[in-house]
Parts: sequence; C-alpha cells; structure tokens
Amino acid sequence: MSSAGTRDPEESTVTLQAPFPKNTWYVACTPDEIEEKPLGRTICNEPIVFFRGDEGRVAAVEDFCPHRGAPLSLGFVRDGKLVCGYHGLEMGCDGKCASMPGQRVRGFPSIRAYPVEERHGFVWLWPGDPEKADPSLIPELLWANSPDWAYGGGLYHVRCEYRLMIDNLMDLTHETYVHASSIGQPEIEEAAPETSVNGEEVITSRHMENIPAPPFWQAALRGCGLADDVPVDRWQICRFTPPSHVHIDVGVAHAGHGGYDAPAEVKASSIVVDFITPETDTSIWYFWGMARNFKPEDSELTAKIREGQGKIFAEDLEMLEAQQRNLLRYPERQLLKLNIDGGGVQARRIIDRILTEEREDSQAGATV
Amino acid sequence: MSSAGTRDPEESTVTLQAPFPKNTWYVACTPDEIEEKPLGRTICNEPIVFFRGDEGRVAAVEDFCPHRGAPLSLGFVRDGKLVCGYHGLEMGCDGKCASMPGQRVRGFPSIRAYPVEERHGFVWLWPGDPEKADPSLIPELLWANSPDWAYGGGLYHVRCEYRLMIDNLMDLTHETYVHASSIGQPEIEEAAPETSVNGEEVITSRHMENIPAPPFWQAALRGCGLADDVPVDRWQICRFTPPSHVHIDVGVAHAGHGGYDAPAEVKASSIVVDFITPETDTSIWYFWGMARNFKPEDSELTAKIREGQGKIFAEDLEMLEAQQRNLLRYPERQLLKLNIDGGGVQARRIIDRILTEEREDSQAGATV
Amino acid sequence: MSSAGTRDPEESTVTLQAPFPKNTWYVACTPDEIEEKPLGRTICNEPIVFFRGDEGRVAAVEDFCPHRGAPLSLGFVRDGKLVCGYHGLEMGCDGKCASMPGQRVRGFPSIRAYPVEERHGFVWLWPGDPEKADPSLIPELLWANSPDWAYGGGLYHVRCEYRLMIDNLMDLTHETYVHASSIGQPEIEEAAPETSVNGEEVITSRHMENIPAPPFWQAALRGCGLADDVPVDRWQICRFTPPSHVHIDVGVAHAGHGGYDAPAEVKASSIVVDFITPETDTSIWYFWGMARNFKPEDSELTAKIREGQGKIFAEDLEMLEAQQRNLLRYPERQLLKLNIDGGGVQARRIIDRILTEEREDSQAGATV
Repeated sequence: MSSAGTRDPEESTVTLQAPFPKNTWYVACTPDEIEEKPLGRTICNEPIVFFRGDEGRVAAVEDFCPHRGAPLSLGFVRDGKLVCGYHGLEMGCDGKCASMPGQRVRGFPSIRAYPVEERHGFVWLWPGDPEKADPSLIPELLWANSPDWAYGGGLYHVRCEYRLMIDNLMDLTHETYVHASSIGQPEIEEAAPETSVNGEEVITSRHMENIPAPPFWQAALRGCGLADDVPVDRWQICRFTPPSHVHIDVGVAHAGHGGYDAPAEVKASSIVVDFITPETDTSIWYFWGMARNFKPEDSELTAKIREGQGKIFAEDLEMLEAQQRNLLRYPERQLLKLNIDGGGVQARRIIDRILTEEREDSQAGATV
Repeated sequence: MSSAGTRDPEESTVTLQAPFPKNTWYVACTPDEIEEKPLGRTICNEPIVFFRGDEGRVAAVEDFCPHRGAPLSLGFVRDGKLVCGYHGLEMGCDGKCASMPGQRVRGFPSIRAYPVEERHGFVWLWPGDPEKADPSLIPELLWANSPDWAYGGGLYHVRCEYRLMIDNLMDLTHETYVHASSIGQPEIEEAAPETSVNGEEVITSRHMENIPAPPFWQAALRGCGLADDVPVDRWQICRFTPPSHVHIDVGVAHAGHGGYDAPAEVKASSIVVDFITPETDTSIWYFWGMARNFKPEDSELTAKIREGQGKIFAEDLEMLEAQQRNLLRYPERQLLKLNIDGGGVQARRIIDRILTEEREDSQAGATV
Repeated sequence: MSSAGTRDPEESTVTLQAPFPKNTWYVACTPDEIEEKPLGRTICNEPIVFFRGDEGRVAAVEDFCPHRGAPLSLGFVRDGKLVCGYHGLEMGCDGKCASMPGQRVRGFPSIRAYPVEERHGFVWLWPGDPEKADPSLIPELLWANSPDWAYGGGLYHVRCEYRLMIDNLMDLTHETYVHASSIGQPEIEEAAPETSVNGEEVITSRHMENIPAPPFWQAALRGCGLADDVPVDRWQICRFTPPSHVHIDVGVAHAGHGGYDAPAEVKASSIVVDFITPETDTSIWYFWGMARNFKPEDSELTAKIREGQGKIFAEDLEMLEAQQRNLLRYPERQLLKLNIDGGGVQARRIIDRILTEEREDSQAGATV
C-alpha cells in the first residue's frame, strides 16, 4: 500500500519531487497559535506538531507518537515536554522520548525533529536537511522590529499550489477585476509594469501618475491627515524572494511631489507582507498582513486596516481555487506568459533553479 | 476521452467512450440562469460557460481563460464579450480573444466555442462536432410556443447516470411506491404497459379504466371545474426521443367517455416534460416541468402545479442516487428486463445504436 | 476481496484478505433499529438490509434488489416480506423473490441471505459461510437475561479499524489522559496491568489499592448509598473474546475489604460492554453499554449512567480517528508493543490465528 492515501488534510497529487524547495525557511505559524496548546499543521506534505518546549522555546516534531501512532498535537505540554494525549508518552523537543509512565524509554524509536526559529513575530520552519538549517538565512524584516512600524495580519488556508499565489501577488493587474471596489482601478492596467531580477530577488514595479485614489487609499490618506480628493501618484513595487515570500511597497502621494520618492508628509504608504507556505502540493497556508510606518501606536487603526485587508485578500481565494481546479483538469495546457506575468515567470525560474540544485545535491549525496 | 482528474463538480468513472451521444442537442440551462451573469456548468464532462454575447445572443465557450486558466464564468459580460474576472482578457463568442488591456491578442490561443441555440424557453447545447450542429434538429415543442399552453418547471442536480432517469420515466410503475401519496395508486401496477418503437421514438402506454383518481388528479379535476369524486379513466403515454428527452401525456377523464380520447370538457390532462442532460458519466442536470392546455393564463395555478410537481419529483432523487451507488458497487451484475422495463430497454437500444454510429463516424474520420 | 467502487458509506483500503473474521457472530443492530422500517447497514464491507420477516423473526439479505439494483432498505415490510420501494418486488427472508406485481418471479435471480439471530437484546449477524453458522456460538451474556441486572447502551460510528478499538479497550491506561475528568486518574498508570491468555480469551487486569475514587465512581458509590469520600480499592478486568467483543469488569470497594472480592455492601461495580463490528476495513459500528447488578429496576439511573458513559466514550472518537489517519499515512511504521499493550497484542494474535484458519479453510475448499 502506498501513502497516496494521504487524505488528511488535503489530497495531494503524485509527484516525483516535491514542487517546493525544502532547504529553506517557511513561516509555519504565529506565536499565538501555540500559546494554549500544541498546534498540528501539515507543511510541505509533512504533518508536524509545534509547541513551546524547554524554556518556552518553540519546537517542532513529527505529529506521530511512536507508541501507537496517535497525533501528538492532541496532547499537551508539561514541563517543556509534549505529552501524548492517548497514553502519556513524553516527547522531547529533539524527537526523542523523554519518559513514559511505567516504562523505560531508552530503546524507543525517535521521531523527526525540525529546525524551527521564532523571529520577527513568526515561527519559521526548515523542512529540509537539518544540517543545512542556518537561522541567519531567515530574512531580515525591518518593520517587524522597529517601534516606527506597526504590523497587522492574518492567515488563510487556500486550496491552490503556492506558485499560483506568487503569480497573483506579482501581477497586481488583477486588482482592477478582483478588487474593483477597494484597491482596484482602471489606471492599474493602463500602466505597464516593469520586471527586473536582482540575484534571487524579482522586482515588478508599476507607477501611476496623477490619478484618483481608490477607496482604500482615500481612507489611508485621511488616516494620515491628508486630503483624499486630490490627484495622486500611486506605486506598487512587488518584491519576490525565495522560497515564496512577497513584499509589496504600496502607496500614494499627492500628485507631483515625486511619487514613491515624495516626502513623508504628502504620502501614505505601507508594505504588504505575504508569506506563502505549502501545505501540500496543491494547498497553502497564506500569511498576509500589512506593515505601516505612520501612526504605529494606533492599535485601532491596525485592527481596522487588518479587517479591510482581510476582506480584500479573501476576494482572491475563490478565483485561485477555481483556477487550480481548472489547471488540474488540463495539465497539458500551456498558459500565456505576458509582460504582466513577468514577475511570476521570473520567480518560477528562480524556484526551478533552486529545485534543480536541491535535486542534484540529493543525488550527489545518494551516490557518495 | 479521459476525464481523469475530473474532481469538480463530480467524480466520474473512467470510460473509453463517453456513454452519451455528443452530436445532438441537450438542454443546457434556462434563460433566467444567464440573465445577471455568466453561468458555469459542466455538460457531458466538459466545463462550459454560458453567457449573452453579441446582440444578446446566447454563447457558450470553454470555461477556461487561455491567459492563466481561470474559469471565465467568474467574470462578467461587457459589450457582448465575456471578460475574465482575473486579469480582464475579453473573450468573444467564437472562443477567440477579442482584446486584453495593454496586450496584442492576435496570437493568443483560442478556446472551444460550442454551438448553442435559444429556443422554446431553453438554451440548447451541441457538445459534439460543430460542423454537424443543425438547429433544425432541435425538437419541435408545440406547448412551448402556443398561447393555449402554460408551462412551469424546475431543475434538479442528480448523482445518477442519465439512463437511470430515462428508465425511471419510461416505467411509471414506480409511482405506486415512490409517489404513493400523490400520483401513485395500486391500479397502475395492475395495468400492464405496452411499449412500441417508432423510428427513434419509444412509446410506453398504460391505460387504467374506471378507477378512483389519486390526490394529484383530484386536485387537477377540481382545477378544471370537474367532479373529483367519480371514477375516472387514466392514461400515461411516455414518449422517449434521443438523446434523453421524455415527454409523458398524462391525464384523467370521467370514466366511460373514451379516456385519452374523451372530449376536453370531461378531462384534465397535461404533458410531463423531462430533459435529461448528462453532467458527468454519473450525474445529470434534470430539467422537469409540466405543460397544460387548460387555464393557461392562470399563473397562480402554474406556480402551484410547479410546487407540487417539484415535491413529487424530488421523491425520486434519493432512490436514483442510491441505485447508482449500488450499480457502481456491483458493475458486473445483470439487471432484470421485465415487461415494465420495456420502455427503458428500447430507449437504451436506440442510444446504443447512436453511440455505435458516433464511434464509427469518429473512427472513419480518424483514418481518412 | 474487491472493494472497488465502495464509496458508500466509507472508502476502504485495498486488501487481499478481509482483515476481520467472517465465520463468526457480530452484533449488527439493536431491535429498536428495525422496529419501524428496514435498516440498511454495511457490515464487513457488505451492504445488508435487516428487517422483521415471517412471524416477526429478524432477517438479513443483500441490500440490492435484483430487478434494477435499488437498495431494498428504502422499501418497507409487508406480511413478512421486504417490498422494494422502487417497483414493488417482494423479497423473502431467504433472498428469493416472493412475488412482484404483474410478474412471474420463478426465474428471478436470488440475492444473498445472511444467518441472523436475535438474542440478548441484540441482532447478531454471521457474515461468513452460512453452513457454518451455529447459533450456539453466540456468547452467553448472563447480565442480558437476568432480572438482577440492568443494561443501557448506545451506538457510535467510528472511522477507525476495529483492532484500534480493541487496543483502546484492552489498555485502560488511556483513561488517565483521554478521560481525565471522569474515570481517569494518575493511579491507573501507576498500577502495572497483567495480561493472561486463556484459550481464545485474553484478560488484562489492573488493581489499584487505597486510592481516591474518581468522579464517575464517586457518583456510583453515592448511587449505591455508600460513602464517596473514603479511600477505595479499584479494579479493571478487561476480557477480550473473538472476534471483537470486550467486556470489562469495573468497580470500586471501600478500601481494605478485598477489592474485587469484597462483599456487595461495600462496593459499586458493573460490566462495561463493548461489541465492535467492522463496517469497512477502516470503520466500525461500536456498540457500547454498561450492565449493573445494583438497583436494576431504577430506569432513571440507567438513563443517567448511559448519558454519562456516552459522553465519556465519545472522548475516544477523535483520538481513534486521528490515529487511524496517521497509521494509513505511515503504513510501514512499526508501533511499540509495551506491557500496557499486552491485551491488544494478544487479542491480535488470536485474530491472526483465526484469519489464517479461515484462509486455509477457504483454500482447501477451493481445491476440493
């Protein structure tokens, strides 16, 4: 029998190689998700349990008790150990059994422990080779660690493969259609985007000059104490970095002051933050949010922006899931790669290169 | 045809040939379903989007945007073109890209356009070879175009293959059991049916004489201003025509006046209208209704009959879906073909003949 | 065994041999379930309909009408015959068509009839070779037929294979974790269990001395008019018999009076009754209940105990279903067999021996 019987939580398609990089850091969860109890979450097709272990440090091990196969995520944490909720086996953060009532556990089989780090307000997981896990590879996030910035965000589960979400975020033309009532406006599709590649970073920029501000940005201007009924210059600068992070500099400035480079007092801007983590080959955990450097102390504003962004980003989900089903139905069809798709196309090239490297590494390792 | 991976909206069984004729007209939807926005509907295993295109004429194309694979049915219609709701590609009624913001579309791949006609209050689709699509093959429906007739109906989605529904409608013996409280009565199964074949039409008739009227027909008699507590002669004349249309002349007359041939003033009668359209190999869109030539102007009566019929026809669904599951479970079992099954058996023979012709045509075409 | 197309009610894994004994009696239902109408229930991967046939005796036949494949369980019983709810075929308790309106049924194919017995307040089914079905093999159940005893119970559907439930019941260590608020207490896991095998019976016993009574047993002591705030001796004696019955002697006595052997006036005790019937390879019908020999006439107490037990036993379901999914995902992993698992391990050995015998019998039969 093959474990193509993986029906929980998502059916995945059969692939010879995982379609996502493994030797990299993914956002796995936020600290609040493991506050009360362990969190079971499948990442890169692997069921993992996250919990606070020794000294409150985050730990991640396979969600499988070596005693009878129960998911450890149904258990609880006691003294930094994860206690199985079925018969009480105590699992250590290293995947080794620490103890079990009435048993000697020395010979018990271990389960896999994953490199995991808590940083920037997120828990980061390294699903690949633990020996290669280098915390310094976790991206620097200025906005996450500065009192000048505020951040609010959320998490969506989406039944599409992670690259469809990267495409979505690297081509904001879709705002005109999917988000017509909030951030979309005809001027977006009239301004041709430019895509450039800088090492492993892909940048797609779009600048719109002397246009009306759409509703979302009118509200942001008002929030900054600026007139909302005057023409603005608007920008969207999408930055992809592997494996699947997209940050987007977005904003508007009163027209004629230099747009993106305008002085702070005539503009409203922020960073759209997107961490896309594969759950299975065809589903993702989508961590979205917005970081802003105005009124960072205003938590009501943070909540309000978060609510608005949550509604806007939810508009993408039906489209992405329906697109995924269509693509699974016609796997042989070649899609178009237009100039507006340049960001996604370049991002996929970088991902493919990484996947090739991982495959070669793994084959080299196998033949040594 | 391969329908592997067809998980939306129904899992279908693997077949070498589609089990339904393709070069024929099926009812696809009713005009109200495409009034506000495009309609995505799978027919004969193909996901199709229906919309009102140029000059308000009905159009049908593949539900797949050649840009990035999004379903076009999530978009909207503008100036007779179907606009993709993801990035704004404009699709023409012919399956060719008409335009896209900021793009030259001349070299874009086309998608399939389907022959489609609006007639008799329905939208008809030809899923097969477009060159053979002849609108004159759409059946004539007297009741649909005469002021002397009124029609009311509805649509059910049923998880059974289309031939099980044909069997159901060509053997009304089941009324005694499935519809015991409305149109069923023991006298039905006591009267042996007669089946005859006339070219591609199959007719199964049943005449019951001097019997009490069941509740549905008592109400109909009252609706016609006739006594409902006297013996009646009752008839059911089921008429199958390919691919899967069943019309049933039904009615009662006060006993002794000639039954089906009795004069209009002593009878209540109507036509049960059934268009059965395959969604997948094991599911259908079932368009049901009733046409009557008494009180055609009484729209309240139309609504009331429609409601009653809807309840009665819903009684079949559980049985048909459970029957389908049982048949899938025991595919090798031979079912009985009794005299009461004659209508369904003959209808299947005609369908099989058509399927053979289509296969031979397609092979001949392939070898030329 | 082929379970192709078995999508209702549970998908089952493909196995070469059914993983459960067939020549044995399983509890199929309780009499109240067939009081009003026939009951369709899949047992050992076979869809079966149970009904009261001739003279009110329980009957069981395949849930498949030989006419058109409809499930007979959607029909009704008339004069001891099961009438198909689609077209009225009358099925006898022997699986032979008794009659059908307007038809001669002599040549109709038969369906399978199953040996079935009503005894001890349950309906028992023999899914294997009918010639081997011996009602005297149905276990004796003293508590079911004595005025000194009262019984209350219920039925749960659980998506796990039947052996996981046997493991669960033969290792009550899990009470400490899964049922912490009712019957669990730390003292359970501190007392090592002892497992012994007596022919086809497996007995796992655990005795705890001079401990506080957990909430459930405090209530039971009060119910018996005994002090609930004094130390007790507690016992759990789990008895497995094939194919999958588990009875557990449970109770507490005021400490120092001999525990299990203490006189009736200082103890509260009962029998936990568990009949586990495979639905498919990975799902079960779980008949649970409790028999007690104190206050047997107090039906309010019976109802109260039943409600409490139902809540406690429901606590196991999430764990068992999650464990099953984990095991399907990692079929190659070897689980631990600790001393606390001894009861389940021995039970599985007996089951394996029976399965081997059945396979050899069946091969011997095939070659004769």
